[in-house]
Amino acid sequence: MYHHVKKLMYTVNIGEPDPRFGNMLLEQFGGANGELAAAMQYSIQGFNCEDPARKDLLMDIGTEELSHLEVVGALIRMHLKPMKSDRAAAEADPLVSIAGGGGVALFNSVGDAWTADYLKITGDLAVDLHSNIAAEARAKIVYERLINFTDDQGTKEALQFLMTREITHMRAFTAALETMGKPRFSIGTIAPTEGLVDEYFNDSTGEGDEGEDGLADSIVEAAKLTKVDSEMFGGEGLDITPDSPVPDSEEVSKVDSTPVGRKPMGKPTILKKTGTRRK
Amino acid sequence: MYHHVKKLMYTVNIGEPDPRFGNMLLEQFGGANGELAAAMQYSIQGFNCEDPARKDLLMDIGTEELSHLEVVGALIRMHLKPMKSDRAAAEADPLVSIAGGGGVALFNSVGDAWTADYLKITGDLAVDLHSNIAAEARAKIVYERLINFTDDQGTKEALQFLMTREITHMRAFTAALETMGKPRFSIGTIAPTEGLVDEYFNDSTGEGDEGEDGLADSIVEAAKLTKVDSEMFGGEGLDITPDSPVPDSEEVSKVDSTPVGRKPMGKPTILKKTGTRRK
Amino acid sequence: MYHHVKKLMYTVNIGEPDPRFGNMLLEQFGGANGELAAAMQYSIQGFNCEDPARKDLLMDIGTEELSHLEVVGALIRMHLKPMKSDRAAAEADPLVSIAGGGGVALFNSVGDAWTADYLKITGDLAVDLHSNIAAEARAKIVYERLINFTDDQGTKEALQFLMTREITHMRAFTAALETMGKPRFSIGTIAPTEGLVDEYFNDSTGEGDEGEDGLADSIVEAAKLTKVDSEMFGGEGLDITPDSPVPDSEEVSKVDSTPVGRKPMGKPTILKKTGTRRK
Amino acid sequence: MYHHVKKLMYTVNIGEPDPRFGNMLLEQFGGANGELAAAMQYSIQGFNCEDPARKDLLMDIGTEELSHLEVVGALIRMHLKPMKSDRAAAEADPLVSIAGGGGVALFNSVGDAWTADYLKITGDLAVDLHSNIAAEARAKIVYERLINFTDDQGTKEALQFLMTREITHMRAFTAALETMGKPRFSIGTIAPTEGLVDEYFNDSTGEGDEGEDGLADSIVEAAKLTKVDSEMFGGEGLDITPDSPVPDSEEVSKVDSTPVGRKPMGKPTILKKTGTRRK
Amino acid sequence: MYHHVKKLMYTVNIGEPDPRFGNMLLEQFGGANGELAAAMQYSIQGFNCEDPARKDLLMDIGTEELSHLEVVGALIRMHLKPMKSDRAAAEADPLVSIAGGGGVALFNSVGDAWTADYLKITGDLAVDLHSNIAAEARAKIVYERLINFTDDQGTKEALQFLMTREITHMRAFTAALETMGKPRFSIGTIAPTEGLVDEYFNDSTGEGDEGEDGLADSIVEAAKLTKVDSEMFGGEGLDITPDSPVPDSEEVSKVDSTPVGRKPMGKPTILKKTGTRRK
Amino acid sequence: MYHHVKKLMYTVNIGEPDPRFGNMLLEQFGGANGELAAAMQYSIQGFNCEDPARKDLLMDIGTEELSHLEVVGALIRMHLKPMKSDRAAAEADPLVSIAGGGGVALFNSVGDAWTADYLKITGDLAVDLHSNIAAEARAKIVYERLINFTDDQGTKEALQFLMTREITHMRAFTAALETMGKPRFSIGTIAPTEGLVDEYFNDSTGEGDEGEDGLADSIVEAAKLTKVDSEMFGGEGLDITPDSPVPDSEEVSKVDSTPVGRKPMGKPTILKKTGTRRK
Repeated sequence: MYHHVKKLMYTVNIGEPDPRFGNMLLEQFGGANGELAAAMQYSIQGFNCEDPARKDLLMDIGTEELSHLEVVGALIRMHLKPMKSDRAAAEADPLVSIAGGGGVALFNSVGDAWTADYLKITGDLAVDLHSNIAAEARAKIVYERLINFTDDQGTKEALQFLMTREITHMRAFTAALETMGKPRFSIGTIAPTEGLVDEYFNDSTGEGDEGEDGLADSIVEAAKLTKVDSEMFGGEGLDITPDSPVPDSEEVSKVDSTPVGRKPMGKPTILKKTGTRRK
Repeated sequence: MYHHVKKLMYTVNIGEPDPRFGNMLLEQFGGANGELAAAMQYSIQGFNCEDPARKDLLMDIGTEELSHLEVVGALIRMHLKPMKSDRAAAEADPLVSIAGGGGVALFNSVGDAWTADYLKITGDLAVDLHSNIAAEARAKIVYERLINFTDDQGTKEALQFLMTREITHMRAFTAALETMGKPRFSIGTIAPTEGLVDEYFNDSTGEGDEGEDGLADSIVEAAKLTKVDSEMFGGEGLDITPDSPVPDSEEVSKVDSTPVGRKPMGKPTILKKTGTRRK
Repeated sequence: MYHHVKKLMYTVNIGEPDPRFGNMLLEQFGGANGELAAAMQYSIQGFNCEDPARKDLLMDIGTEELSHLEVVGALIRMHLKPMKSDRAAAEADPLVSIAGGGGVALFNSVGDAWTADYLKITGDLAVDLHSNIAAEARAKIVYERLINFTDDQGTKEALQFLMTREITHMRAFTAALETMGKPRFSIGTIAPTEGLVDEYFNDSTGEGDEGEDGLADSIVEAAKLTKVDSEMFGGEGLDITPDSPVPDSEEVSKVDSTPVGRKPMGKPTILKKTGTRRK
Repeated sequence: MYHHVKKLMYTVNIGEPDPRFGNMLLEQFGGANGELAAAMQYSIQGFNCEDPARKDLLMDIGTEELSHLEVVGALIRMHLKPMKSDRAAAEADPLVSIAGGGGVALFNSVGDAWTADYLKITGDLAVDLHSNIAAEARAKIVYERLINFTDDQGTKEALQFLMTREITHMRAFTAALETMGKPRFSIGTIAPTEGLVDEYFNDSTGEGDEGEDGLADSIVEAAKLTKVDSEMFGGEGLDITPDSPVPDSEEVSKVDSTPVGRKPMGKPTILKKTGTRRK
Repeated sequence: MYHHVKKLMYTVNIGEPDPRFGNMLLEQFGGANGELAAAMQYSIQGFNCEDPARKDLLMDIGTEELSHLEVVGALIRMHLKPMKSDRAAAEADPLVSIAGGGGVALFNSVGDAWTADYLKITGDLAVDLHSNIAAEARAKIVYERLINFTDDQGTKEALQFLMTREITHMRAFTAALETMGKPRFSIGTIAPTEGLVDEYFNDSTGEGDEGEDGLADSIVEAAKLTKVDSEMFGGEGLDITPDSPVPDSEEVSKVDSTPVGRKPMGKPTILKKTGTRRK
Repeated sequence: MYHHVKKLMYTVNIGEPDPRFGNMLLEQFGGANGELAAAMQYSIQGFNCEDPARKDLLMDIGTEELSHLEVVGALIRMHLKPMKSDRAAAEADPLVSIAGGGGVALFNSVGDAWTADYLKITGDLAVDLHSNIAAEARAKIVYERLINFTDDQGTKEALQFLMTREITHMRAFTAALETMGKPRFSIGTIAPTEGLVDEYFNDSTGEGDEGEDGLADSIVEAAKLTKVDSEMFGGEGLDITPDSPVPDSEEVSKVDSTPVGRKPMGKPTILKKTGTRRK
C-alpha cells in the first residue's frame, strides 16, 4: 500500500529557468535510466521477490525512487516554465509545450514515450541484482553529465543530492548480491561447460584504423581465459564438443529464486557441481 | 570491416520440431536479452570506446554474439518449420507464419519487434561494462530456462553451448572492469556527498501480507549503510543539507572515457577527493 | 514523498491458479487502461496542477492507483505461478515464463511493453479531468469483462473491489470538473466560430450493408446541431468563411490552467465572449 | 466504402512559411491527439458499433476527421517547404527533411511515429463515447495552443476552423451518450459495491511544498463521497468486506453494446439493481 | 475531402466463425503490410506529390485501400464474434476480447499496435513508387497465406477479391514508375561512382552448413557486376579511391520530385552525366 | 560465422566537426532506411532463404552493410565530438549527449530507437527481393540528401562511397529477381481473379485545389487497366462476382520459397494457370 506526503524529499530551488536544460533533465524523468525506470524496476522485482530480506530492500529503494521522480519533476517544471509563454522556448520541445502544456510528462529529452522495454526484470534474484547495480551506475553518470551542463547553483545541488543516492543504492544492491553467498559467476542452477567456458574467442583481428589484434590480451589473462583463434584464420576455433546440461550442477544460494522450467520440487538442494561432462 | 563464413559456429541438430518451443526460443533471437541485443550493445560500445584494450574486447565479443545470432536462428528455423504447412502450428505465432512465412525475424516470443530500447549504451566505459556483466547474467538465465523446457537432446546441447559462452563473456567483462583500477563504487568524476551516501532510507515499513520492516537490516549493515527512518513516521529523514558538486573529486582510471559536459582539457587528472564539502 | 506499507490495500486469495486468466489480468497491470496507466496519468497531472484543490485530489487518487497496482500484481502472480514449472502453462505467455520467470512485469496480456503513449496529459486541467473520467470508464469495463471470464470466487471479489473504486474515482473527477464552473463545452480560452460550431457534417451517407443515412438525426437534434450535406452530393457544405481566433473569447474558470502560447500576464480575465466574429 | 474528392474541406493559405511552426503543427497530423487519431478512433468504433444511430454518427465524424487530416497536412506542407532547400530549416526536423523529403508523414512534432496506442477503443459504446468527448477536448486545446504560437493570419484562420469542429463533435458525442439514457455513472452491467463506492480514500496527506491535506474536501463533498483516512495514519481505511459481483445489477440502455464474457443470450434485460450485497 | 458510403466495397459472408483465423486476419487490418498501412502510405505520398498524374493515382489507390480496410474489418468481426462470450475463444487474443470487447482495433495478429514505422514515405516520387510496388507484393503474399489457412468459402472469396486488387495496384505503380522515363537504376540527381558501382563485394565466403562460396556468381554476372574479394582473404577489396559527388550527374525525369538539400532553383535540368570523375 | 577486421571498409576523414550534421547522419546509422536496417533485412532473409544462389547473395550484401554501419558510425562520431564538451552542441541531440555520452547509438536523427518494424521480411523470396530493391532506392536518396546538406569534402566523399554501393546492391537484387524467371506480376502461387485484376478503380475524383480527375489516365492505360467509376457517382463499380482461389494457378519459379499454409508436398509443380474462374 502506498502513501503520498505533500512534501518533496528534497526542496528544489533554481535561479533563472533554462528551458533547454529542463528538456535535458527529462532524461531523468521519463528517460531510459531515469527515476521512473528505477522505481518500476525495483518495485516490481520487489513484488515478485521470494526472499523477504531482499524484497524489503527492493521495496525500500523502489519507493525512494518514486520520491525522486517527484523531486526531479519539480526541478524540471521550474526550468520548463518559459515554454508556456515564449515561442522560442516552446521550440526547444514542442511535444512538451504544445501537447503537454509546458509541464512534465513521461517522455525523455527527445520526446520518446517512456516504455517498459527500458526495464530489466527476470524474476531471478541474483540476476536482477546485477541489473540493478548496472542501473544505478547508469543513473549516476547521467546525473553527473547534467551537473556538468548547468551553472545554476540550486539545480546543481538538487542533482548532487539525487546523484549521491544512486551510489548509496549501488552499494546496497551490491551487498544484497554478495550476501547471497553465491560464487561470482554462478547464475542459475546449470553450470556452464567446463573447458569451453575458459576459452576466449578472438573474433576481431587485424590491424587498421580501428585498432589492432591482441590489445585485450591482458584482460583475457586477468579473466583466466585462454585465447582461441578462429578457424577462419587457421586457429582451432572454440571447443564445440556437444555437452549435455546437468540439472543442479551450479552452486546456488538458500535465497535463490525458484528455477523456471523444472518440475516443482521446492528449492533445489545446494550442492557442488560434480558432473564430469567432458574431458 | 565484417566478414561472414558460411558455417555455423556450432552445428545444430534437432529431433522432432517443436513449433511452440521455437516460438519460445525467439526470446534469444529478437528478444530483450537475446543475441542481437548482445551483439549490438557490445559492438556499438566498441565503436565508441576510447581505450584500445577494451575496444578490442568489445569487438571480439560483439562479433561472437553475431555468430550466436546465426546459430540460434538456425535452431529456431528447425523448430518453426511446421508453421509453414500446419494450421495448428501456425496458430502458435501467426506473426511468424502469416507475415514471416515461418522463418525467423527480429521479434521476441510474443511478437514484439526488436527495439534498441533494449540496449544500455552510455559511452562511459566503466558504466557500460557494468551493464554488460548484467546483460550476460540475464542471457544465461534465459538459456537455462529454455533448456529446462525442452527434452530434445540436440536442442539442449546447442543451448548449453550458447549458455556457456555467456559466462565466459561475463568473466571477461568483469576482468575488463576490475583491471581499470577504479574503486568499486567509483562512477564518473564527481564524488557523491559524504554522509548522505551512507544513509539508507527505510521507505517501506509496517507488517502485513507483503512482509515486515527491518528484514533488510543485515544487508544494510553489510553495505556499511546507516538506516534512516522517514519523517513521516517520526524518523529524522535523509540529510538534505545542500551540497555542491566538486569537479574531479572522484577517483578515475587512466582508461576512463572522456567526461561529458566539461570544458575539453584532455583526460581529467587522477586525483584523490579532497573537498571537505560538509561536516 | 512516497511511502510504502507492507500490506495490500485488499487481501487477495484465490482457489486454483488459472495461468491463462492470469495472462488476461495483465491488461490491468501493464495494459493501456490498467492501474499503472491510471497511477501515472493522475499523479503526473497532479505534479503539474496549479489548482491546490484538484492537485490534492489528483495525488490522492493517483496514489491509490499505485496501491491497486500492487493488489492486482499480487492477484496475477498467484494465477501465473504454474508458468514456473509447467510447460503448457508457460506457453500461455512465453514472455512471462521465459524472460520474466513467471512473475509480473509491465506488459499487457499480449506482451506489449507498457508505454507512456497510453497516457493523456495535456496540462490543461479541465481537459485532463475529461480524460480521467473516460479513463475510469474504461478501467471499469475491463474489470467487468475479467469478472465475467472467471469462476474463482476470491478472484471475482478482488476484481469487484478494484472495479468499484473506478466508479468512485469517476464520480470524484466529474465533481472536480463540474465545480470548476465552466460551461459544458468550454475548453481553453478561445471560443469556437459561431454558426460553424452548430453545423453537423453528414459525411457518411447512402444505404447498404453498413447502415443507412439519417440514422443519427435524433442525436444531431439533441445536440442542437444542424445537419449539413456535402457539396459532393449537392449539399451546401460547411460554412468555411474565414474567421479569426479571438483571444479570451471563451468563458474560463478561476482555477483554469495557465493558457499556453500567450504572453505571460497572470491568469486571463474571466469575461464573456463579445467578439462578433462573423455574421 | 470511401471516396475522395480533390478539394480541401477548407482552403488553406499562408503568408511566410515558418518551418519550426510547421514542425509544431505535426502534433495535429501524426500526434497523439491529432486528426488521424481522431479519424481512426471514431471510424473503427463505428465499424464495431452495434447501434445504428451511433454507428452513423461515428462514421460521419470519423470521415470528417480524415478530411481534416488532409487540410492540416496541406497547411503543414506549406510551412515545411523551406526544409527542402535550407539547411537551417532542415535542422528543425531532420526526420522530415532527410528521411521525408520535406513533406508530411505520420510523425508528431518530435518525430515519434504515430501509433495505435494513442487510440481508445473498448467496444463498449458508452465507454467509447466518454473517450471521444475527452479526445475532442484534447484536440481543441492543442489547436488553441498552436493558434497562440503563430501570427500568420491564414494559418490562424485555418486552425480556428479545425478547432471549431472539435467543439461541434464534442457536443455530438455528448448528446450521443446522454440520449442512451443511462445514469451518469453507470458503466457496463455489474454495479459497484454499495458503501465502498461512496468512500473517498485520502491517500496524499501532510503539509509541505507540494500542498496540504484537505484541500480537495469540497470536491469530495460535491461528489457525495465520504473521506476515509488510511490505516497507516490511524484512519479506518477503505471498507474491504469481500463482495461478490452481481450480474445484471447495473442499469443499462437498449443500445448498450453486448457485454463481454457472458454466455450469449441476446441483449441483457434492462433491470433495476436489486441485490443487497452488503450492509 | 473524404466521403463514406454505407456499403462495403465487397459484401462479406462467412460460414462458421473461426476466432483464431480472425486473429490471423488482423495482419491485414492493423499489421505491417495490411490495408491501413497501404491506405496511409499511398494517401500521404499523394498529399506530398508534386506530379499531378501520379498524385491522382496515389489518391485513387490510397482511397481504395481505405475501403479495403473496411471490408477486411467486417470479415474479421464476423470471425472474432465468439470472443465476446466464449472463454476459450477469448484466449486466442485477450487484447481483442478483454480490452477491445471482441471488435477490431489497430493491432496485428499478435497484438502489436499499428505504427507509422511500417510506412515508407520518402517524398521522392520514383523511390516511393518502388516502395509501393514492394508493398503490394507483400500484401499479395499475405492474403495468399491466409487463403491457404482457411476452408471457409465466403472467407476465401473475400480474400481472393482483396488479393486480386493488390496485383492491380502493383501493375499501376509499375506503370507509374516506368512512364517517368528514368533509367532503371537512376535514383535522385547524383550519379554513383563509376567503376565502384560495378563491383560486387564477396563478403560471405567458405563452405559449410550455411552454403558455399560462388553460388551467386550467375546473378552477379546477370547484373553486369564484377566480383571482388576481401583484402581479408587476399582479394583486392573494393575500389575506395575518394570520389566527389557531382550535382545533376544523374538522369532525371520531368516529373521527378524537387531534390532535397539543394539551393532552390526550380526543377534540375535534365542532362546526361558528363563528369569524368575517376578512371 | 562472423568475423571482424580492425579496419574500416572506407577510411573516413572530416574537416571541422558539425554536430547538427552528425545528428542528421544518424538517419543512416539507426534510422528506418539506414545501414543496420539494410544489414538485418538482407542477413535475416539470407538465414531463411531456401535457394542457395540468392542466399549467398543476401549474405554477401547483408555483411557488407554491417561494414557500412561501422563506416557511417565512424563518420558520425567525428561530427558528434563537440557534444561531449559544448553545451550548445549538446542541445542538438540531448539523447546523444546526456544519455549516450556523445557517441553513436541505435537512434535516428530525432532520437527514435531503432526498431525491427523498419524491416520487410516475408520469407517469400521474390517478394523479399522486391522489398530489397525498394530499400536500396530509399537508402540512395537519403545519402544524396545528406551530401546536399554538407560542404565538408571528406564527408561528401565518404557518403558518395556509401551511396554508390546502394546502387550496386539495387542492381544485384534486381538481377536476382529477374533471373528467377517469374512473370513480372507473378507473386505466390494463386493467380488473381481475371477481369477484376484489370480494373482500375477511380476513387478520387472531382476538381479542386488538390487536382482534378482523369490525370492518371495515361498511366492507367500504360498499365493496361480499364478505369471503372464508383457506383457512388453512377459508375458500375468493380466487378465483385465472387471468385474462388485456385491453388497453383500462378506461374512459379524453381527457386520460389515454399508456399505457406499448404499441405507439405514439396515444391509446387510449375504449371500454367488453366482455371476458367469467371467469364
